[in-house]
Amino acid sequence: MGISNRTYTLRNCAYIVDSQQAVKTGNIVIEGQYIRSVGNEVEGDEIDCSQFIVVPGLVNAHTHLAMTVLRGFFDDGELHEWLSKMWNEEEKLSTELMMIGSEIGLIEMITSGTTTFVDMYFNPEQINTLSSKYGIRARAGPILMRESSVDEIMKKMRTLERSEFFEPIINVHSLYATDIEDIRELRNILSERDHVHIHVSETREEVFQIKKKYGLFPVELLQREGLMKFLHGVHLGWVTSWELGYLREAISATHCPTSNMKLATGGVFPMREALDLGVNVTIGTDGAASNNSLNLFQEMKAAVMLQRHNYWSTSIRAVDVFNASTVSGYKMLGLKGGKIMPGYLADLVLIDKYQVYPLKEERILSHLVYNPPREVEKVIVGGNLIYEKGDFTERLRELVEKLSLYL
Amino acid sequence: MGISNRTYTLRNCAYIVDSQQAVKTGNIVIEGQYIRSVGNEVEGDEIDCSQFIVVPGLVNAHTHLAMTVLRGFFDDGELHEWLSKMWNEEEKLSTELMMIGSEIGLIEMITSGTTTFVDMYFNPEQINTLSSKYGIRARAGPILMRESSVDEIMKKMRTLERSEFFEPIINVHSLYATDIEDIRELRNILSERDHVHIHVSETREEVFQIKKKYGLFPVELLQREGLMKFLHGVHLGWVTSWELGYLREAISATHCPTSNMKLATGGVFPMREALDLGVNVTIGTDGAASNNSLNLFQEMKAAVMLQRHNYWSTSIRAVDVFNASTVSGYKMLGLKGGKIMPGYLADLVLIDKYQVYPLKEERILSHLVYNPPREVEKVIVGGNLIYEKGDFTERLRELVEKLSLYL
Repeated sequence: MGISNRTYTLRNCAYIVDSQQAVKTGNIVIEGQYIRSVGNEVEGDEIDCSQFIVVPGLVNAHTHLAMTVLRGFFDDGELHEWLSKMWNEEEKLSTELMMIGSEIGLIEMITSGTTTFVDMYFNPEQINTLSSKYGIRARAGPILMRESSVDEIMKKMRTLERSEFFEPIINVHSLYATDIEDIRELRNILSERDHVHIHVSETREEVFQIKKKYGLFPVELLQREGLMKFLHGVHLGWVTSWELGYLREAISATHCPTSNMKLATGGVFPMREALDLGVNVTIGTDGAASNNSLNLFQEMKAAVMLQRHNYWSTSIRAVDVFNASTVSGYKMLGLKGGKIMPGYLADLVLIDKYQVYPLKEERILSHLVYNPPREVEKVIVGGNLIYEKGDFTERLRELVEKLSLYL
Repeated sequence: MGISNRTYTLRNCAYIVDSQQAVKTGNIVIEGQYIRSVGNEVEGDEIDCSQFIVVPGLVNAHTHLAMTVLRGFFDDGELHEWLSKMWNEEEKLSTELMMIGSEIGLIEMITSGTTTFVDMYFNPEQINTLSSKYGIRARAGPILMRESSVDEIMKKMRTLERSEFFEPIINVHSLYATDIEDIRELRNILSERDHVHIHVSETREEVFQIKKKYGLFPVELLQREGLMKFLHGVHLGWVTSWELGYLREAISATHCPTSNMKLATGGVFPMREALDLGVNVTIGTDGAASNNSLNLFQEMKAAVMLQRHNYWSTSIRAVDVFNASTVSGYKMLGLKGGKIMPGYLADLVLIDKYQVYPLKEERILSHLVYNPPREVEKVIVGGNLIYEKGDFTERLRELVEKLSLYL
């Protein structure tokens, strides 16, 4: 490889593909953390990419990373039963076990092309550490739920150090697991750039409870409380059409198709309608206890499948989910990324072209979504080459062995 | 490896898993094409399996293998529009191109754990050749549709030689693409062991057409025409509940969840109800132009997801789809397979245990379905080791390059 300076070239890429276009052959010059040019220029060291398809790094908009530990623990219940089992089990998780679970999850994501993720779990400081160690972009923060107070979570927020790759966010579990007074208190101290990540309108039961208690549907309630411009709402399987308009102001609405299907919530985020209204739609795998995979390529496919089945319509296409997992993901975090163009972040994933065929320019995006590669070859985040195929095999085995000792 | 005789031992398997149970550690002795024992016995050469999970080979109950050539050609239309585009394109496919497409598909299936498949396409003799070449079990045969006559297809049937791995079947495209007189003519010459593989009740439009034309729903019509005991019906997304009972007599009813979702048919095969009635339910990927993957592990997951979403119920579980893809698949073909027990076919797949974790006996089946391994390590069919990881990498590249020259 020999990347000995910070300006280098991905030379002769077989295909360069983002949600805007697929281009056959070309060079990508990377300078610092950004793409400097796409075309014929060559500068600095060179990586021969004639066997690779280059795509933007994917953004997994909703994870509970440490939950790889609970993968397969309880698969056969609906959300509220499932949640009570999880909460019960989570009380027993040690910090060490959460660290193992999170590192395993991180390796799974990097090796399947995810370069950025937004996490909700009890170990944001560990996520911060892992983000530095692996060079992957992460957002995480303390969770407002049940007994926690706004004071506490704001204190914890301040202990989380920002870096090039990590920024703290505010996690609110849900309206049903939080007191409305706490949400108001939180609202009053939010500042411009705050990001509030919350499960919302996931089940009919939640919608029923909230409507009965507050007289409003969940997204309506969040809107009335002035949270919309900070909102990163997740699931929204039971959002009403009149609430969708409010979500235009939100940071993002995240669709988690597999988790919703597996937990038999019955709801579906109305993706076509949301996109048509201009909502910034993103895609998340959710945690490994409700999916149970963290592979965002597979999740893009699941999103198309669920949408097409539910609406008896093929109006959601490969390009929509690819755009949601790239362009809209970076937009959600205020980053200039997700396109392979000069000035955009050099968050890139290299894929073996012999896994993505028939090799025709106009079909590549379809293959990436509907027949995703088994694994990726190289991953670059902010210009740093953070992964080459095979890199974490040994480490993953160690972690899996360690995990066995605990469970 | 050194498998120098036909009795050998898979020694110290990390886990032995079938739909009946998961057992931690043990040996499997294979003699000829069958499993001789499971337990402590050791006989003949040994393969150290301490790093492997051993599962039965999967049965992909519905494919159009050569259609890897058309992968990504047209993704965004509903079934009948899609079908007319395919038929149009298929007229241009040369025999050579079909062979390339089928071999690619075969490699994809073997490397993802499929050891048996049932195919409907225009090249059954090529499938026969490939089945011998690769040592994978296949069923294929000529297709009764549009201009073909029963005479012609029976003549073609006779040219297809049976082998240990291959048996000819009769493909009928569908009721809407065949004349009812032809179906009656066919019925009159069927003999006991014949297997009639047909797309049925796939869309509302089909059901409407058939009901309007014949006064009966599609499965009712097939029942009235005396075809039930030969029937391998595929899709059945719009089957009525009163027709389900008839399917108990059928060879199998195959669920193709991804294809149905991708083509937005809106229908769902009522899997729980069918299983409760005792129907022999199997799972198929369908072709690479409508899925677009041939990975049956992923298809098992898709089946659970679609069922749970559609029925707002978690009653379909990992074990149901695993059983459908193993035990019921072999049963459909009259083979004693799908369980890892003495006397059963030695059709086995070995999976790296470090891809299937947390490594707990009671969770392994869940992992196999909900977070399937990226690839498998070794594949055994009828006692023959037909694949070891990496085996077909070069061949696949050659085929992909060849394909590029044609398209």
